[in-house]
Amino acid sequence: MAFTEGEVIALLAQVFATQSSAVEVGIGDDGAILKTSARTVITTDMAVEGIHFRRDWSTPFEIGRKITAANLADVLAMGAKPTFLVVAVSLTGDEELSWIEELAKGIAFEAAIAGALIVGGDLARGQNVTISITALGEVEIPILRSGARVGDQIYLSNLPGWSRAGLEILTQGLISQLESAKRAIASFKAPTLNYQYPAKLMGATALSDISDSLMTQAEQMATASGVSFEINCELFKAAADFSELAKLATEIKVDIYDLILGGGEDHLFIATGINLPGIMVGEVTTGNGLKLLGNEKAPDIWRHFE
Amino acid sequence: MAFTEGEVIALLAQVFATQSSAVEVGIGDDGAILKTSARTVITTDMAVEGIHFRRDWSTPFEIGRKITAANLADVLAMGAKPTFLVVAVSLTGDEELSWIEELAKGIAFEAAIAGALIVGGDLARGQNVTISITALGEVEIPILRSGARVGDQIYLSNLPGWSRAGLEILTQGLISQLESAKRAIASFKAPTLNYQYPAKLMGATALSDISDSLMTQAEQMATASGVSFEINCELFKAAADFSELAKLATEIKVDIYDLILGGGEDHLFIATGINLPGIMVGEVTTGNGLKLLGNEKAPDIWRHFE
Repeated sequence: MAFTEGEVIALLAQVFATQSSAVEVGIGDDGAILKTSARTVITTDMAVEGIHFRRDWSTPFEIGRKITAANLADVLAMGAKPTFLVVAVSLTGDEELSWIEELAKGIAFEAAIAGALIVGGDLARGQNVTISITALGEVEIPILRSGARVGDQIYLSNLPGWSRAGLEILTQGLISQLESAKRAIASFKAPTLNYQYPAKLMGATALSDISDSLMTQAEQMATASGVSFEINCELFKAAADFSELAKLATEIKVDIYDLILGGGEDHLFIATGINLPGIMVGEVTTGNGLKLLGNEKAPDIWRHFE
Repeated sequence: MAFTEGEVIALLAQVFATQSSAVEVGIGDDGAILKTSARTVITTDMAVEGIHFRRDWSTPFEIGRKITAANLADVLAMGAKPTFLVVAVSLTGDEELSWIEELAKGIAFEAAIAGALIVGGDLARGQNVTISITALGEVEIPILRSGARVGDQIYLSNLPGWSRAGLEILTQGLISQLESAKRAIASFKAPTLNYQYPAKLMGATALSDISDSLMTQAEQMATASGVSFEINCELFKAAADFSELAKLATEIKVDIYDLILGGGEDHLFIATGINLPGIMVGEVTTGNGLKLLGNEKAPDIWRHFE
């Protein structure tokens, strides 16, 4: 083992140090003590080496960013402002202290973008690196998955599919000269969240992040709202980067709608309402579940857990 | 795989169902929404198969109880009342749905004793079972590790060492006819917390739970408080179950002070103050760190992470 537990804890206390008055007691006691508002959002997300990330594909900084972004996206998807994070990590003992430091810095970097503080954690020994983050947020008026109403339009903050395209490139060991290939790989390794988007959604009736695929999440929202989501695949073409993704899809021999509809881990947002910002991709109608227009085959849905 | 992710989530939503008005939005959205007070305690703890528990030693119900108790103890050790938990679990896919159900029921059982609700979670695929729980609590006046004052007495809620004795018995494959061996094994598999103890500590100046060993935690408290903890090993003999543990220690050929001072995972409480309930084991003096009286050899400290 290249380090002691005490060394790691001292390092993490330094990387995650904060002077915020919202943290009454930080790292170092049995728990942290936080100033909280009357309504707190909580989400948790676990990432496992070999399933969600690979140490030979991603830097520890990227891994830290990615798992943190996944958690922050869930808080934002409730219409909330992220506030605090705790991080539990299992380490094999083979990691260098510098690797752990970069992981922590990736977590701190992503949290800082969202204005959230890391206030505690736990270290365990394990056969692989597993990272589990719990994020808190504060919210006055939450936006749930279940609020979509007949007549609403359906919006995406960004075009999905980039992360899965990156995963395909890495999995297949493809080498592409396209700039878009680099973007796809970067999206997979550490997605760049549209942190501003949820705050712009005045009057949105429902909101979710897309972590498991657009198909899956749209279906969940439709079911939770007791309505039908009619998504028209032709409308994705209005996205500024559609043709770039389509060109990349052709190059890597993956159906573009498998990427857009079935891709996971983009951590972008889907919202319903009238005249919202983003890409309008369909409308909410009576019925139940998801209807896809303009796509002949059922998309291949990416899953973590199968 | 013996189950789909949807089946597991439906099962967990059922096991963890609550009608509490403190949970505005529970399992099923991107996050849960909770009613919180002005001051929230947060703790997180991760348990890894093969390190913290073994599926051939413990039932899933016991595993669920144990990791939940570890988290609840940290909340209680801040002088707080546990309120909400979120649970992230990696599964190999080889588990039966009934195994997962029992794990969840163990978590729910232990949380119910403390009055806490499970409000969310995450499922991931992994090479082993890893369970990460984050617990929230509410507190008006926290009791920190750093408040011990010269002249205070040092108290334990219960005699430590039972959990480690159980671990020794299981590790060495010993068979003992003693009732105390059964108690030790049960303590290791799923410790029975003294949930009432922290609430009785009127006027306590410092408080911690003992998860890493009495030696380690007492030293941490002394350092945090800028004082010395003088623990007199003769005073452990006042504990009602000292002679029972001593007899067991002899039988399993482990030094009793290795069990008491160096044992981990008892999740009992250490507090400082005057005339507190529990076992008085020493006093707070000027100086720094831990002084042990009445024990000649340095105890062998149990560690998770080495």
